[in-house]
This record gives sequence, structure tokens and C-alpha cells, in this order.
Amino acid sequence: MSTYACDAAAIRDAAQRLAGIVHRTPVMTSETFNRLSGKQLFFKCENLQKAGAFKYRGATNAVCRLSAAAAANGVVTHSSGNHAQALALAARRRGIPAYIVMPKTAPAVKKAAVEGYGGRVTLCEPTLTDRERTANELVAQTGATLIPPFDHPDVIAGQGTTALELLEDVPDLDAMIVCVGGGGLIAGCTIAAHSLRPALRVFGAEPSGADDAARSKAAGQWLPQTNPNTIADGLLTSTGQLTWPVIRDRVERIFTVSDDEIRATMRLVWERMKLIVEPSGAVAAAVALSEAFRAVRDIHKVGVIFSGGNVNLDRLYW
Amino acid sequence: MSTYACDAAAIRDAAQRLAGIVHRTPVMTSETFNRLSGKQLFFKCENLQKAGAFKYRGATNAVCRLSAAAAANGVVTHSSGNHAQALALAARRRGIPAYIVMPKTAPAVKKAAVEGYGGRVTLCEPTLTDRERTANELVAQTGATLIPPFDHPDVIAGQGTTALELLEDVPDLDAMIVCVGGGGLIAGCTIAAHSLRPALRVFGAEPSGADDAARSKAAGQWLPQTNPNTIADGLLTSTGQLTWPVIRDRVERIFTVSDDEIRATMRLVWERMKLIVEPSGAVAAAVALSEAFRAVRDIHKVGVIFSGGNVNLDRLYW
Repeated sequence: MSTYACDAAAIRDAAQRLAGIVHRTPVMTSETFNRLSGKQLFFKCENLQKAGAFKYRGATNAVCRLSAAAAANGVVTHSSGNHAQALALAARRRGIPAYIVMPKTAPAVKKAAVEGYGGRVTLCEPTLTDRERTANELVAQTGATLIPPFDHPDVIAGQGTTALELLEDVPDLDAMIVCVGGGGLIAGCTIAAHSLRPALRVFGAEPSGADDAARSKAAGQWLPQTNPNTIADGLLTSTGQLTWPVIRDRVERIFTVSDDEIRATMRLVWERMKLIVEPSGAVAAAVALSEAFRAVRDIHKVGVIFSGGNVNLDRLYW
Repeated sequence: MSTYACDAAAIRDAAQRLAGIVHRTPVMTSETFNRLSGKQLFFKCENLQKAGAFKYRGATNAVCRLSAAAAANGVVTHSSGNHAQALALAARRRGIPAYIVMPKTAPAVKKAAVEGYGGRVTLCEPTLTDRERTANELVAQTGATLIPPFDHPDVIAGQGTTALELLEDVPDLDAMIVCVGGGGLIAGCTIAAHSLRPALRVFGAEPSGADDAARSKAAGQWLPQTNPNTIADGLLTSTGQLTWPVIRDRVERIFTVSDDEIRATMRLVWERMKLIVEPSGAVAAAVALSEAFRAVRDIHKVGVIFSGGNVNLDRLYW
């Protein structure tokens, strides 16, 4: 029996369920990044995932796991980010409605993206209270199932399939760097990776303007994220009740990087690797290039996850 | 015996020679592009190739084929584009000098890129006459071997390995769209593809502002490109003595697209596929989305080559 919200068996089940539905994303290498990091880096390209981020794995796993009766009523979430798009697309694939609660203040381009995937958007006040209230009302009205963005066993299991694939492609990794927002990706990936390779060292990556996981690790207890301030808009949230215990016990250390480091890394990825990553998607790579990470000894082959690539191309980020 | 400058055996030899040196680039798919084109498209991502373009294949093959004695004196080319960078990197890999002749007017960023790969840049007047004169002087002074950007059997054979890999990954393609500048890529890819799949239909893609191959096909004879005017700066040149016969005999048709179509396609590739392609690199994809190509009957699975991804990220293209 697992100590955590999901175990390796649930992740392997998810991998079977998702085969042929999610993209098996490529693992890329770059001599430039190897040289700059002093290590051998293997980039798992979830920016190339359907709906543009790893979120499609967890959303699809959760949607697939619903009974036919529950599924018929649809799914709900409150998010303005990649989980909203992912859930809308996963629901459309199963032919069920997705009710997406977004704050009135969300950019028009994000609303359009969700609607482009067939999501039904309900606008609310830009407060967590009103988002939750509106989502609960939708559940009451429609009988739809709430699929939260990270703190859910099926979502965590889905995200963990990212690390299974990475280790299938590069079985002898010494370490892995994964960005931390709510912690769904790092929790799932840690459980998956340690089931195959118990000695693999897992490092978290956070923007210094939203460093709750780093502070929580330092304090030895869960701390919330208040007033985040970073360009990495996918990593603003606190870790969850299900994800924090995995981070607490199994993640060796959380590294933080500044917005300038994130922007510089992002540009380098675009320029040298020819891949579009969003600011949050570049945070793990920025850690890989940081002074602090260069100082970590005894690791050579490092997996780095590009978590997403949804950007606004009306302007550049630098 | 082959009618053309290189045959399938030379391309298979090149593939063996290049294994482990060039990236085996991934083949990507996109539901958005499938929907917009009405076909199933398979994108061969040479924008992810080393030095950012398919040119590294031909340059490396040519450099590897030099005898030790010839190689020791280095290689020369006159180019300000992707071939220059590719040749510099291929030469550095073999530990030999690369002398690159560039017009004084070439952007500083292109000069820096060549020098970043270890190339030794000689500036000349921005005329073909002075480029050739300067290159010939370098050959005379150094004993280096001239490696032209496309009209050379080893270069064509190297570029052809792109299609070998594409057909290994997607053996049942009905057709292939390849951009045409000097014609090295389409000539090599056509010979490779027809050796595996004689009925495969090959289509060329040109910007309407540099449509010499389309006009040549229409006229039934080689015509030069004069005064090209297009954003696709990798496709400005005329086809060559070795590449034109393959285009003439084996390419079914050349489609042209406007700069607006190229720009719109480029943005769509960045936005939906999360891949950086340069203007020239988006021309084949722009053809795939064009009205004229949609009207072609009896083809379903189409290979499309993203030829390169070297862009200037100081500004956007739209």
C-alpha cells in the first residue's frame, strides 16, 4: 500500500490508458546546454504535448477514469491556465461537457483558447472564494465532476507518466529537475521515477517570486504561497495536501531562479533548441544552468522537463 | 548507373556515415494542421538539426568524404546563410579550418553565428563575382576544398538522408513537400524517396518572390532566379546544374506561396506546434495549407519538411 495519493501501479495504469491519446513527447539534447550546465541534460518536451503542456496527461487520465454515468454530466474546473485548456480538450475527446470557471480578468486569449477546445466558460470575480463558489454552483446545477488542477490522485498519476516515458528513453538518469507550482507534476514524476530507479535524485525548480515549496522544505512544514510575483504564471499556486508529502519526503531540494534567469533561459531554448517554451516551462532548465545547481556533485545525466509552451506571440518576452 | 549526380546507394552510404553525428530529427504531427490541410501531415523537423537546419547533413557528408590530406587544408564556401554555419560546425567536428566568405552587408548576427561554430570569416563585396573571386583566392592560398551549398554530389547525398529517415518513420507516405532554393534538399530527398517508394509524389515549395523552379518547370527548361524578393531568405538562389535535372524529371509540380502565407504559417507553427521555424523553413508547410495543394486529389499522408529554424529573436516576424 502506498503512503501517498497515488502509487507506481496507478501511474503504470495511467500510462496504458493514455497510450495513443497523449503524445509520446520526444526527449531532446543540446550541446549548448550541456556545455553551459557542465552536465548531460535530457529535455522531456511536454511543451509539445497536446494542448501545449503536461496538464493534458492528468486531465485525460481523470476524465477517462470517470464512470459513464458520471462522465455524462461533464467536468468542472476553475483555472485560467493550462489545466483549463487540457481539461476542455480531454472532455471534448470523450464527448462530454467541460465547464471552466475563469476570472473576469483573465486575458481574452486564454478564454479563446479554452473555447477553441470546446470548453464552456463561466466568468467570475477574480478571487479564490468566488472561483470556488462558482465552480460549486456549476457542480450543483449540472452534476458535473470537479477535476482540480493538481491535488487529485488521477491527475497526479497522469502527470507521473511523463517520468515513466523519460526513463524509458534514458534509463540511466542520475537526477531529474521538475518545476513546482501546485506540485502535481513533481509528485507524480517522483513516484514514477523512484519506482524504476530508487536512487534517482529529484530536484524541484521554482521562481524566486513564488518559492513556497522551497520555503516549505526549509521550514520542514507546509507553507502557503502568498502574493506571488513572477513571469512564470503557471507556478503561482501553493502545493497541495496530496502533493506536499511527496515533495517533503522524496524531493532532495528545491532550487529557485530569478525572472531574469527564466527569461534568459527561455530565449536560449527558443534560439538554440528551436523550441517554444513558456516562462514556467523554462524554470527547470534555468535551474539546470544556475550556479547553485552546477555545484551539485556526483550527477551527470539529468532529466529536465519542459512543462509547457503556451505563450502569447503578439510580443516577445525579452 | 545513375542518371543524376547522386544515387540511392550514395544516400544510404551517407546515412551510415552520418549516424551518430547528425541528429535523427523527430517527425511531428498536429491535429490543427491536419484539419486545416484536409490531409494527414508528417513534419520532419530539420529545424531541430544541429546548426539549426538540414544543411548540416550535406556539409558533414562532404567534410567526412574528404581524404585526410585534403581535409587538413580545410574547406571554403561563400554563403551567409545556413550552409555557412553548417560547414563551420562540420569542419570543427573534424578539427579542420573552415573559411567562410560572406558579403560585407551580411547581418552581424550571421557572422557571429559562423564564428561561434569556429568558422574563419572573410568579408567581400556583396556581389556574386566578388564572392567567387574571394573564395577562389582562399582556395589558392590555403589549398582548402570548396564545398558549395547545394550543387555537389556529396552535399545532395547528405541532404537526401532526411527523406530516408522520414520514410523509415512513416513508410506509407503518399507524397512529400520540400522547399526549393538551390535544390539540394529536394534533389536528394526525391532520389532517396523514389528508391524506397517509386510511386511517392514529390512536390516542391517556393516563395512566389523566388519562383525560378516553378517557372523552369512551366517552361520545360532551366531558368535563373533574378531579383528575388521574399522573406524566405534561404530560398533566393537559382537551382543548380546537378539539382535541376532531378526537379525537371522527378518532381511533379512546384507550388508557390506568398510572403503573407509564409508569415501566417510560420506563426501557426510557433503557436500550435511550439516549434521555431524560419521563414524558409515554413514554406513547405505553407504549401500544405494552401488552396492549390488542398485541391490535389488522391493523396492522404504527406511528409512536409521543416528545413530550418535559424531566426533573429530580437523581433517578431508578424
